[in-house]
Amino acid sequence: MTYDPNNIFAKILKGELPCHKVYEDETALVMMDIFPQSKGHALVIPKASSRNLLDADPSVLSSVMPLVQSVAKAVQSVTKADGIRLAQFNEAPAGQTVFHLHFHLIPAYEGIALGAHGSGRADDAELAQLAKDISAAL
Amino acid sequence: MTYDPNNIFAKILKGELPCHKVYEDETALVMMDIFPQSKGHALVIPKASSRNLLDADPSVLSSVMPLVQSVAKAVQSVTKADGIRLAQFNEAPAGQTVFHLHFHLIPAYEGIALGAHGSGRADDAELAQLAKDISAAL
Repeated sequence: MTYDPNNIFAKILKGELPCHKVYEDETALVMMDIFPQSKGHALVIPKASSRNLLDADPSVLSSVMPLVQSVAKAVQSVTKADGIRLAQFNEAPAGQTVFHLHFHLIPAYEGIALGAHGSGRADDAELAQLAKDISAAL
Repeated sequence: MTYDPNNIFAKILKGELPCHKVYEDETALVMMDIFPQSKGHALVIPKASSRNLLDADPSVLSSVMPLVQSVAKAVQSVTKADGIRLAQFNEAPAGQTVFHLHFHLIPAYEGIALGAHGSGRADDAELAQLAKDISAAL
């Protein structure tokens, strides 16, 4: 399996497509998932090109994990979620839909089932507000 | 939320309970999940005491991720899975059942739905063989 440099996250990283940005540094971009499984669903995307975990540079994984943790805490702080799921999918049968490495942080709320990914596009104004609030909490 | 040193993974790490061990070094233990969601479901458990991602030492996260990647590749190599899911749950509403940080690596097979976690205990002989094969592939 090879890396396709025209995948949608690569285009977002290059600034060719918009996103609800939470945070960005030299190594990674954090944004809201526009098809959230729950309110506050965020994505942490290393900038280095890799299809997924299986072909990633191990040093990229090491450097991004503290950010994944910080975003998880910020998402929980803002959403007051009862729990947070970290998920990362490798290849389509495992649920991967965009073939650039990314980590999902999905808030869980007591008594509310998670929506299927892609079941609906979230409201842009709500996503923009969440991005702003999570960014401030980082 | 505090860390309970008597959780079942802490007992396994101390050698007080058995496991189907794949790998162990100073920093982490890898074992088969005895209630697998699919064949080859493995767990990577940092030895440092933390309840989950939210209270983990960031340096522990950085150091364990290359091992998580290596185990993912070994699991895929042994099981010939069509994909691999990485999952890590924080607090019970998110699916966490053992309150010591651990990463799930769950093979996905084309056309086969994942079982609910805990839907059945796997056969010990099969788990022992998988542990041996994945260890050899690491």
